[in-house]
Amino acid sequence: MKAKNAIYAQSGGVTSVINATAGGVIEAARKSKRINKLFAGKNGIRGLLREDIIDTSIEDIIQIKKLQHTPGGIFGSCRHKLKDPSSNKKEYERLIEVFRAHDIGYFFYNGGGDSQDTTNKISQFTIDAGFPVNCIGIPKTVDNDLPYTDNCPGFGSVAKYVATSVREASLDVESMSESSTKVFIMEVMGRHAGWIAASSGLAQDKNNSAPHIILLPEVPFYKAKFLKRVKDTIKKHGFCVIVVSEGARFKNGEFIADAGTVDSFGHKQLGGVAPTIAGMIKDSLGLKYHWAVSDYLQRAARHISSKTDVDQAYAVGKAAVQFALSGENAVMPIIKRTSSNPYSWKIDKVKLSQVANVEKKLPQKFISKNGFGVTEACKNYLRPLIQGEAYPPYKDGVIETASLKNKLVKKKLKTFKV
Amino acid sequence: MKAKNAIYAQSGGVTSVINATAGGVIEAARKSKRINKLFAGKNGIRGLLREDIIDTSIEDIIQIKKLQHTPGGIFGSCRHKLKDPSSNKKEYERLIEVFRAHDIGYFFYNGGGDSQDTTNKISQFTIDAGFPVNCIGIPKTVDNDLPYTDNCPGFGSVAKYVATSVREASLDVESMSESSTKVFIMEVMGRHAGWIAASSGLAQDKNNSAPHIILLPEVPFYKAKFLKRVKDTIKKHGFCVIVVSEGARFKNGEFIADAGTVDSFGHKQLGGVAPTIAGMIKDSLGLKYHWAVSDYLQRAARHISSKTDVDQAYAVGKAAVQFALSGENAVMPIIKRTSSNPYSWKIDKVKLSQVANVEKKLPQKFISKNGFGVTEACKNYLRPLIQGEAYPPYKDGVIETASLKNKLVKKKLKTFKV
Repeated sequence: MKAKNAIYAQSGGVTSVINATAGGVIEAARKSKRINKLFAGKNGIRGLLREDIIDTSIEDIIQIKKLQHTPGGIFGSCRHKLKDPSSNKKEYERLIEVFRAHDIGYFFYNGGGDSQDTTNKISQFTIDAGFPVNCIGIPKTVDNDLPYTDNCPGFGSVAKYVATSVREASLDVESMSESSTKVFIMEVMGRHAGWIAASSGLAQDKNNSAPHIILLPEVPFYKAKFLKRVKDTIKKHGFCVIVVSEGARFKNGEFIADAGTVDSFGHKQLGGVAPTIAGMIKDSLGLKYHWAVSDYLQRAARHISSKTDVDQAYAVGKAAVQFALSGENAVMPIIKRTSSNPYSWKIDKVKLSQVANVEKKLPQKFISKNGFGVTEACKNYLRPLIQGEAYPPYKDGVIETASLKNKLVKKKLKTFKV
Repeated sequence: MKAKNAIYAQSGGVTSVINATAGGVIEAARKSKRINKLFAGKNGIRGLLREDIIDTSIEDIIQIKKLQHTPGGIFGSCRHKLKDPSSNKKEYERLIEVFRAHDIGYFFYNGGGDSQDTTNKISQFTIDAGFPVNCIGIPKTVDNDLPYTDNCPGFGSVAKYVATSVREASLDVESMSESSTKVFIMEVMGRHAGWIAASSGLAQDKNNSAPHIILLPEVPFYKAKFLKRVKDTIKKHGFCVIVVSEGARFKNGEFIADAGTVDSFGHKQLGGVAPTIAGMIKDSLGLKYHWAVSDYLQRAARHISSKTDVDQAYAVGKAAVQFALSGENAVMPIIKRTSSNPYSWKIDKVKLSQVANVEKKLPQKFISKNGFGVTEACKNYLRPLIQGEAYPPYKDGVIETASLKNKLVKKKLKTFKV
């Protein structure tokens, strides 16, 4: 079989370890004689459509190795959802054109649920168009909401960041609580599923009662019940630490954040469930509070990534190439837990058609009866995912990252507007 | 000379390394035969006044060693300013009563500028009252605003957190900026001085242009000029990362945060300069933004403390005891930079009367001409302070911390209401 080129693209919100996956793809591709060059889409699928194609083969292996400790998306990512080919063929036809022009035999698409759906459609389209390309989806999402895989690369590191940060901040709040701040609220990501908020439960142990309240998107928010819980917690512990998912919502589905602040012009403010909750506490209980919104800091925090996560992110990248080379198509590598204690895992695979449009939320058995916390079963699931530290090197006191040339190959096609 | 007891108390906002200072005090006190027991005030000076006194001598040395990687204030801290003895003698007299009852010969007060002033007054009062106690102030503040000392324990770790977090988040924003978020705003602490915001400048290097704008309390904020700068930055780099100090203000002295959001009840929201700035950008430029407020996370982040900072925090604690034992009174150990390149430092001392009520702001030469950044001179000052990683141990994937018994000694006096 003649060697073909391959192309890799990142999609959606990046993580602290998506570049470790890129490293896994690149290194595995370099080892195979059946892959000629590995290209990468500049800014994801948009780069593919525009024929903005990066030649990764000219990069020094030293820099490629550094991808394992470089957060962000090294080739650029994007938010761009391809429509269904039945309603909009243009973009699919363009992809075929680009694949053909650059002799692409393998396509690797690294993203969340939407991207897996897209990968599946592209795979089918290349077959229908008579230019079959082996399309492999690679999982990535801090939200941990993909089905079939035991967990998603990117999530374990955010979970470790959140558990560690909450424990640290709790010690801070506790020590000042007698005469100062009594309530601390930390907002974390998770628009639809509460996996990230749940991971804050790992901050609890026999010496640490915090977080005392975890507000999950899966549990409807009742203001009075919540405020009572805050009051009771302060009575018992002297302080109250709350972790709230950005997706926490009322029973009618409205986001708590939307119930909140308007700016000085009367416009509704986007985001900010933490300050909204803080406002409720101030107005109803009159307590001194502080709040934090870690936003991108949490998903970019490579300095505290979980080693388990880094290893798995690399492994799914490598496995994607191996699957493609063994003739697999329209599949996604998944992480399969083979044992919980001691934790062990292996790479398996699932058909993209099964992954598409399924969102994995926190199961009921992971949520405590009162709805304000997580169960031991949940912690047992989460704990292995934050194990191990994978410290990056530092230069001048700051995390050192890869620096790629990201040189584009010469265009062969007409301009295509994205 | 007969051995006396000593007492240590933490004051004001805690840091990720104030317990390292406590460890320095405890270990040095244990080594001296002239100090009988080292006590600690529960919740700072309030504990002293109430006779809530912790006996540190019963703690295992293994746990004391763990203080070097335990954020928060292990004995509790407080916000409590003793009034001037000329207007309110009651609290000073109570302190003398407590010192006398517990045979205290040495007092160590670990805090910021206000606390140094208080320590000085207590020292004088004990002399005037005929029960002289050697009072030593120990510097601590993330704000880095104490005079005479080259820098303040607690600051270097926040600086390292901020520089690292901004670099990480910048890579995230940059990779998504073509089709998604163009502006990222990170709010950091620093109500009066811009040292913490300035430290984000260390995230810049030849590969990293961010942060593009640093808003300091020392530079008046002009909305139009700022918005133009954002626009120009996006034109040049495609994205814009802004670090804003919570103390950033307009020319009339009004905090930007105060110009901002009102909650759903029309109440002014406290804090939140980042969302306020974000609102301006949205309204005027219509750009997609994200914002983060790290709040307590930044000052509690022991997982990314600077080794230089941990070492210095321990050293000032140890030096405080040595000063007291050598007969010094009403002084504070300071950090003296003996060389910048290679960086070296030693402990020196200053009279508390000189420290009191002086606030060290960013000097003009550290602020870039356009007011939106910091100079090389500033970076050269800051860089050594974030050097080195002092990783804490982890247990089950989360930072491991000390667990003290914090047992109170038997009270000998009547109740005193604080």
